[in-house]
Amino acid sequence: MSPRGQLPITFITDYGLEDELVGVCHGVIQRIAPGTLVIDLAHGVPRHAVRTGALALRNALAFMPVGVHLAVVDPGVGTERRPVALRCPDGNLLVGPDNGLLWLATERLGGAEQLVDLTDSPCWLESPSATFNGRDLFAPVAARLALGARLDDVGDPVSPDSLVRLELPLPSTASGELRTHALGIDRFGNLQLGADRNHMSEAGLEPGAPIVIEANGKRHQATYTGAFGGVDEGELLLYLDSSDAIAIAINRGDAAARTGIELDSLVRLLAT
Amino acid sequence: MSPRGQLPITFITDYGLEDELVGVCHGVIQRIAPGTLVIDLAHGVPRHAVRTGALALRNALAFMPVGVHLAVVDPGVGTERRPVALRCPDGNLLVGPDNGLLWLATERLGGAEQLVDLTDSPCWLESPSATFNGRDLFAPVAARLALGARLDDVGDPVSPDSLVRLELPLPSTASGELRTHALGIDRFGNLQLGADRNHMSEAGLEPGAPIVIEANGKRHQATYTGAFGGVDEGELLLYLDSSDAIAIAINRGDAAARTGIELDSLVRLLAT
Amino acid sequence: MSPRGQLPITFITDYGLEDELVGVCHGVIQRIAPGTLVIDLAHGVPRHAVRTGALALRNALAFMPVGVHLAVVDPGVGTERRPVALRCPDGNLLVGPDNGLLWLATERLGGAEQLVDLTDSPCWLESPSATFNGRDLFAPVAARLALGARLDDVGDPVSPDSLVRLELPLPSTASGELRTHALGIDRFGNLQLGADRNHMSEAGLEPGAPIVIEANGKRHQATYTGAFGGVDEGELLLYLDSSDAIAIAINRGDAAARTGIELDSLVRLLAT
Repeated sequence: MSPRGQLPITFITDYGLEDELVGVCHGVIQRIAPGTLVIDLAHGVPRHAVRTGALALRNALAFMPVGVHLAVVDPGVGTERRPVALRCPDGNLLVGPDNGLLWLATERLGGAEQLVDLTDSPCWLESPSATFNGRDLFAPVAARLALGARLDDVGDPVSPDSLVRLELPLPSTASGELRTHALGIDRFGNLQLGADRNHMSEAGLEPGAPIVIEANGKRHQATYTGAFGGVDEGELLLYLDSSDAIAIAINRGDAAARTGIELDSLVRLLAT
Repeated sequence: MSPRGQLPITFITDYGLEDELVGVCHGVIQRIAPGTLVIDLAHGVPRHAVRTGALALRNALAFMPVGVHLAVVDPGVGTERRPVALRCPDGNLLVGPDNGLLWLATERLGGAEQLVDLTDSPCWLESPSATFNGRDLFAPVAARLALGARLDDVGDPVSPDSLVRLELPLPSTASGELRTHALGIDRFGNLQLGADRNHMSEAGLEPGAPIVIEANGKRHQATYTGAFGGVDEGELLLYLDSSDAIAIAINRGDAAARTGIELDSLVRLLAT
Repeated sequence: MSPRGQLPITFITDYGLEDELVGVCHGVIQRIAPGTLVIDLAHGVPRHAVRTGALALRNALAFMPVGVHLAVVDPGVGTERRPVALRCPDGNLLVGPDNGLLWLATERLGGAEQLVDLTDSPCWLESPSATFNGRDLFAPVAARLALGARLDDVGDPVSPDSLVRLELPLPSTASGELRTHALGIDRFGNLQLGADRNHMSEAGLEPGAPIVIEANGKRHQATYTGAFGGVDEGELLLYLDSSDAIAIAINRGDAAARTGIELDSLVRLLAT
């Protein structure tokens, strides 16, 4: 696949694409591992939004080739948080700051078999900046791993159990009621909730049923359906989104704007 | 060009680059067809703007290598619109929803020689989502075609004549007058009209001439010239844009904001 | 690295990623030089901001593989400014409009050894547009150079001394005072100044010291520190940014918004 048989790298950050941060990291990778395939997973994670990045990484990995997954959403750059790299049982390698960003994906992939601390990595670029570890440490480490370096070539082994965790708010169910939280809002105003089809079933909420959405003291009528086309234009619906989470949307509209639900808002779904 | 000689893929959507939708489709392609070259044509087509996407695709194809052209602007995802793939006489392959998005490019390339309905394609990913056909169907189909699959390997043959058409508003000319519509607005406020150099000539409007632009009940003085540099800074000009359409611009300014012309506005160009 | 051993191309523009301009240039490159690695350095340079593009290019090149560097920020497209290509002593090749955009990078790389005027280049696409030299001239030239063409294959030799220069405002120092200008503002509101660590030392301003920032008639307390973590959240700091320039930031905040400093504002840094 690549000229020297190296692994592909996927790359997710909150750097944005306005300036040259992402491009510079690509350059660093190509200098070390020429010809490596780099898949830009997303660079529009909201600034410092570790959980949003962690969810995107987890949800995307099932569709990515096995390789090195480079993730940088790093509000603590330059402070005491550890830079790390890890290996999962299926051979996937993750590289990034140890601030919870890697947790959800690692958990989904079966946990970390090996974890190394990159603080004293031999991969650091010379005269690095204090604020751009993506360029100076993480991209070089990812490139070395893509070329086949072992984890203990790039960092110091530490206990896999020491990986920083990220807890998501859990949903709770009662008869005819599901309580959950808004975990994501996309650019169309679709709201991803912290619940899936099984939670809906536990609460007795089944596809086709009318449902009341209660949040911020307001109530909204919605339909629990499969696709956007299942309700009239402008109407609220609950559906299973592309990462198998329950989501709130409006057919050709903006559900976040309509309902006022924000990231982390408590949302109650009620049978009617 | 690619490790197994596969075709390149070009990729245009209205997904935006904020979140991981585009990156996930890249991952799906690389899992199926490792090392395939994917050219991101654009992902900033306004949401659900089928005609804008169709124009961009048509205008770009002349500059693209022969290959697979994956286009997803799909307001009807999950409804009865057909997913399709088709082959043009020159070997170019197009994949996307059959909602008019593929029409203009297909027409430009000499029409569809073969068309298949992808509804029951063997390429569907397992347990697909109802809302993300780009990932679950169109990207896998494009990847298979890039690897050399035949159209009837990925879908069911249907009549090439059944491809959904997209009609553009036609210009009309009289002596000293051209009536046309605004078909595109770029991020600089340049307005692409539905007319070309020949329509201008038919109306007796020739390069170098002063012209009155009438739209929304207002009139503006402009010059029909070649390049931006042909008028003073801040002045309106008509020029032949990069896709050979007549366009309205302001030298270092925003013509849409100045004139109030919007997508689909009727625009009259008058000799003075 | 590439199928025919061609050089990699880096690519920076002010085209944005909303529409198909960047994608079309990629297509042109791949038609001429199939399989060439193209690194998108950045396409979000503010429209017509030649100096911003020149700084980004200069700062990025140290991290890029040796190759062809294609840069297009071109307010004068279609006018008398020359299109050029040049070679630096280390083998790097630069291609773009001769409006100062290439100056800072060329200077950093040791100057131009060879310079060619591309006005009558054999690389022009047929029936080119007057407004899209990126597609019609610069991308084809970059692709030919990536394939190994010599400079005099793509343009007419001119004196390397004739390359258009770009002057940056120089800082001045006195005891306890550094006068400089804001040269860059990133999307987080971090302000890059036209001074480096040595200028700070000359003014007697050392890391760890409290400093007063004076600009636009207002004064702000700040700390000259290494990393963002060196001050409390919401406080102003001066630090060495990723391109070794002194920059003003707020820990998890927007320094440009807080201070009102704009591009080119005079900024005085004073010992307290």
